[in-house]
Amino acid sequence: MSDRITLDYSRMLASVTDGRGIPESRLDALAGRFRDAHGDVERRRTAGELGFFALPYEQKVVEQIRSFADGLGQAYDTIVVLGIGGSALGTIALQNALLKPHWNELDGEGRDYFPRLYILDNVDPSTVGPLLDRLDPRTTLYNVISKSGTTAETMAQFMIVRERLRAALDDDHYRSHLIFTTDPERGVLRRLADQEGIATLPVPADVGGRFSVLSAVGLLPAAIAGIDIEALLAGAAAMDERCRTDDMFASPAGMFAALQHLAHTEHGAPTHVMMAYTDRLYSVADWFRQLWAESLGKQHDRAGAEVFRGPTPVKALGATDQHSQVQLYMEGPFDKTITFLAVRDTALDVAIPEVYGDVDELSYLGGRTLGELLDAERQATAAALASRGRMNMTIELPRIDAHALGQLIMMLQIATVYAGVFYDVDPLDQPGVELGKQLTYGLMGRKGFEAPRLDEGDVPRVVK
Amino acid sequence: MSDRITLDYSRMLASVTDGRGIPESRLDALAGRFRDAHGDVERRRTAGELGFFALPYEQKVVEQIRSFADGLGQAYDTIVVLGIGGSALGTIALQNALLKPHWNELDGEGRDYFPRLYILDNVDPSTVGPLLDRLDPRTTLYNVISKSGTTAETMAQFMIVRERLRAALDDDHYRSHLIFTTDPERGVLRRLADQEGIATLPVPADVGGRFSVLSAVGLLPAAIAGIDIEALLAGAAAMDERCRTDDMFASPAGMFAALQHLAHTEHGAPTHVMMAYTDRLYSVADWFRQLWAESLGKQHDRAGAEVFRGPTPVKALGATDQHSQVQLYMEGPFDKTITFLAVRDTALDVAIPEVYGDVDELSYLGGRTLGELLDAERQATAAALASRGRMNMTIELPRIDAHALGQLIMMLQIATVYAGVFYDVDPLDQPGVELGKQLTYGLMGRKGFEAPRLDEGDVPRVVK
Repeated sequence: MSDRITLDYSRMLASVTDGRGIPESRLDALAGRFRDAHGDVERRRTAGELGFFALPYEQKVVEQIRSFADGLGQAYDTIVVLGIGGSALGTIALQNALLKPHWNELDGEGRDYFPRLYILDNVDPSTVGPLLDRLDPRTTLYNVISKSGTTAETMAQFMIVRERLRAALDDDHYRSHLIFTTDPERGVLRRLADQEGIATLPVPADVGGRFSVLSAVGLLPAAIAGIDIEALLAGAAAMDERCRTDDMFASPAGMFAALQHLAHTEHGAPTHVMMAYTDRLYSVADWFRQLWAESLGKQHDRAGAEVFRGPTPVKALGATDQHSQVQLYMEGPFDKTITFLAVRDTALDVAIPEVYGDVDELSYLGGRTLGELLDAERQATAAALASRGRMNMTIELPRIDAHALGQLIMMLQIATVYAGVFYDVDPLDQPGVELGKQLTYGLMGRKGFEAPRLDEGDVPRVVK
Repeated sequence: MSDRITLDYSRMLASVTDGRGIPESRLDALAGRFRDAHGDVERRRTAGELGFFALPYEQKVVEQIRSFADGLGQAYDTIVVLGIGGSALGTIALQNALLKPHWNELDGEGRDYFPRLYILDNVDPSTVGPLLDRLDPRTTLYNVISKSGTTAETMAQFMIVRERLRAALDDDHYRSHLIFTTDPERGVLRRLADQEGIATLPVPADVGGRFSVLSAVGLLPAAIAGIDIEALLAGAAAMDERCRTDDMFASPAGMFAALQHLAHTEHGAPTHVMMAYTDRLYSVADWFRQLWAESLGKQHDRAGAEVFRGPTPVKALGATDQHSQVQLYMEGPFDKTITFLAVRDTALDVAIPEVYGDVDELSYLGGRTLGELLDAERQATAAALASRGRMNMTIELPRIDAHALGQLIMMLQIATVYAGVFYDVDPLDQPGVELGKQLTYGLMGRKGFEAPRLDEGDVPRVVK
């Protein structure tokens, strides 16, 4: 029991939020609809449409990754992920949650001799250039992640990196510094891997980018950096089992989706803040931000009607954002829910010494710990928000370890699929990004794509 | 002219956004109201209510900071800022924009022998503990920043650091590893500085935390790390001069405020995304997030009526968030504006080698640069958004240097004050954070504060 993630939703309810929140009767009514939603999801799962559900159970893939990782972790000082969006966000979340802080600044001993881990998820030359200049090609492994092999950002990075490797190493050796994580059968990267003899790991065909952290996409870099991927998957499996119920009130994923959907559609809260009360989980909020936005932000519902639907996820960090965003959350429009991420057992704590006992403004801090202060601030903020009619809930992790992270990731992935049913949109596609890609191709002069006219009107309006 | 920041707002207009955006006639109408707003701001400036306006011109303070910094930069390997919210966000923005990427990972030569710079803006023991353990007290300087000296998070950190310094150094020497940036006359830190003989720099009494980056709060750590603070202030002064006009169409700050306000109140867009198309400026969006949210998110208008007002600022990063948020921005509700941060001259670029000329999906990238790709993606995204009726505008910096950053910071600070007039709220207070502080004091057992009852209703509702 104590290993489990809990979801405390008391402060989402009307009774605790000055009548502004959700009446329990509405949750009861939704529980019936949830039974249908759960049935729908189970059917699609069985039909193989929701490949991410299978990831915690892919024993063979895990063994393959583990054997790769054990060999590679020894051989390289540094691993660099070239990937963007779903190919990067999950790994960043795992890194910041499960590796020591400032990992890449630590020496070998500080890292228990696991490699440094960089995730290059942008094509800003001012970041990419200096980093590549600094890394020694001879001790660096590049993990190129793109399901299709056509992601412009990642492929541009790959072309640069491959050339540098070939310049620094001989033709036979450059390939051993590359691993592709890509579609098992199709796509450019698959083709290049075959031609050049580069090692690969699969992104299962039925797993989309934003649901792929528990595939080789996230697992390989995590394993190489020393993260216990078996525990991660065991946590995910435990959450999956827990959510295989049509009783909404017993399902963390079901309740999370139901509460957010009701808060949005019946209580005017389209903005869904996820506020981690620990630096370690801030990047989980960033990973969730893609999951929630890209899955639920849709022009059309499942019947094809134009609906322009979707909540806006926002990431926040406690206690830091108490000094930045909480003024707005407390006093601004009633258009938000806040989901706190809390941790029951903060393994590491720092004592505040008992000094300044005679200084009124400071003496209460002496003899306490930073962990106690952070936890008090979270509880105080949650209570204060509710007292001002602001809906909030708390996801509590037993501790920050791979098992708990696995639970959290799986819970939010499953919740996204349920939310897709509630919002009546397809949570697996992303048609809205296509136009931007086409225009980029045109601007970059790709064959078959015309240079677009970038409409700014007849006369651009510029303050200059 | 070419040194100037520009604001291109063509794509905020109805004519370019399929009729969804702002009609030019509404802007014309607002220009009259802006004249009054500008007059109001000028009056309050003259009355000394808006202290941040004076910061670019404080020659004596700058000299004091410069002489401090020149001495200290030599003496220490590492500087750590202990501060939160307005005491940290501006410095983080300056660090990420103006220092080399991964600054703290570089060796002395890579940093041109300027010190490492850490900003501890949270009390998470899992971050604070390992960092303090790793730093050598003998070569580390701690800059404690709190105007009042009562900020719980910062003071807890200070108590821990002071004890560690005293344990590692003798009683005379610990004080030389501390500098306080605080109120020039009042508050706990001021008192302790006097008692213990600790050096201080002032936060002017009439400058609030979120408007303080151009005071000693931001300038001291920036100067120590080698940032050209004189150029930063010169940029800020140039923008200030430029905005001393009652012609809204000539004022970058005025136009920015007017456009955001109109988009929110007349076109249903309360969510204001700032999307930097360079890693270097992502933290500027985070700094702006405090400025905008805390200044404009208010329960009461200036006449005291209950209004629950305020836009929600959101930070985003291009191209990265094209693979995370742009699906929602393109297809979701019409409730957002996107402000792109762009850079005209990216000093550093990285060539993409001409390889894979025979691979259709890649050949267009060969011979181009990462900077060109990033810029094409920004232009494509802006055009695609507008074509789907999504309002967006672009703030373009001539380049990323201290002068341009100074302009940008000042522009957004002034815009915030104008927005305060348009939204009819006090942009300088933050009454909404008080309750959370009181409850925290209660939970931490501070004398005179009762332990609060944290209302979760009669029976907590938890999925467990």
